[in-house]
Amino acid sequence: GHIIVYGYGASGEAAVNELLRQNMLPERIVVVDYNGDRIAAALERGVTTIDCDATHNSTQAAANIDTAQAVIVSTGRDDTTALVVLSARAMNPHVSISATVRAVENESLIRQAGADHIINPVSFGGHLLARAAEGRHVVDYISDLASADGKVVMRDRVVTSAEVGKPLSAITTGLGVRICRGDHQIGYWEPEAQALRAGDVIVEIAQTRPLSPLP
Amino acid sequence: GHIIVYGYGASGEAAVNELLRQNMLPERIVVVDYNGDRIAAALERGVTTIDCDATHNSTQAAANIDTAQAVIVSTGRDDTTALVVLSARAMNPHVSISATVRAVENESLIRQAGADHIINPVSFGGHLLARAAEGRHVVDYISDLASADGKVVMRDRVVTSAEVGKPLSAITTGLGVRICRGDHQIGYWEPEAQALRAGDVIVEIAQTRPLSPLP
Ligand SMILES: [Ca+2]
Ligand SMILES: [Ca+2]
Repeated sequence: GHIIVYGYGASGEAAVNELLRQNMLPERIVVVDYNGDRIAAALERGVTTIDCDATHNSTQAAANIDTAQAVIVSTGRDDTTALVVLSARAMNPHVSISATVRAVENESLIRQAGADHIINPVSFGGHLLARAAEGRHVVDYISDLASADGKVVMRDRVVTSAEVGKPLSAITTGLGVRICRGDHQIGYWEPEAQALRAGDVIVEIAQTRPLSPLP
Repeated sequence: GHIIVYGYGASGEAAVNELLRQNMLPERIVVVDYNGDRIAAALERGVTTIDCDATHNSTQAAANIDTAQAVIVSTGRDDTTALVVLSARAMNPHVSISATVRAVENESLIRQAGADHIINPVSFGGHLLARAAEGRHVVDYISDLASADGKVVMRDRVVTSAEVGKPLSAITTGLGVRICRGDHQIGYWEPEAQALRAGDVIVEIAQTRPLSPLP
């Protein structure tokens, strides 16, 4: 499966750089943008590019949306983002769609349009400012968790059969912090975290693996 | 000590809401903005406001920068942010200053100007987009860590005398993830994490406390 990135502004570019740093092959990334300069910048990374308006269904077809593993939408405008999400969701009911949103009041609309993950960088920035005002090291650590470089990364994975029945604290691939069991979220401190079940998804903090240099 | 918030745009407002949700008294927050509508919005939260240009030293004096506990700068323009950081740092050499930056190339300049914490919401958004494309639950968890609501919050604190000599994994206030020892960062998996020392700062994941409703 490939990852389609609609919009190669600053956030889209940061997302692509992150994916490449984690050893994703450039040919598995398809960048769609109507702006020639941004397409040229994407080409320098060796990714596949489509120089087109992302709101056209023909563009989604050209990006092979039906076989994509994930879709990232970061167009810089909430109206454009809503339209791209709607059209991507219409052409692939199952693909994971993540979108950045500017205005808080558009978050639920873009979720309704079909996005699985909504990221509001401005609100997030505000939350980090509050954390930074309280403590010296929290923002550094959260930044490290969110990025492929540094000492740690946060990831999720399905529980293995060997782990079933054991406590979350016994996993050896990282530090388990949460269990996602269906729609239920279980914290490391809760009694249900004492016995992992088949089908559980574990959220864990892991040491970073050696990273690829950017092309 | 009070917290001064320079700039009450979307990020500044999100930061103030976060601080209030964590039971900070509104009178301990001073919002500085030159825009009357934004000042009116801040007044609705019950915080102290100063309707002035943040780049004037007289504004910093009016905000009692010399006795402030922390400064948050989120003006929406990197040039204005640099100037506010410079003037705040000149008037208080020890206060914690956090700033949001738009362009990656300005991050080191604004750090040089005197900011302790630099937050780039756009880069951060890109990193979260990459995380969301890989896993279903990582972005939700990182958002929860960064915010006062939800099930968890990330915080840091100085080690207690009772904890000295014990391993990081033995703390009972949360799940310890990192030790900051001087300039050195020690991960939960490292041998040095087996014995806490006096003066260590622990980064931990804690359950959220009951939150205040927003005024
Ligand atoms: Ca990292
Ligand atoms: Ca939270």
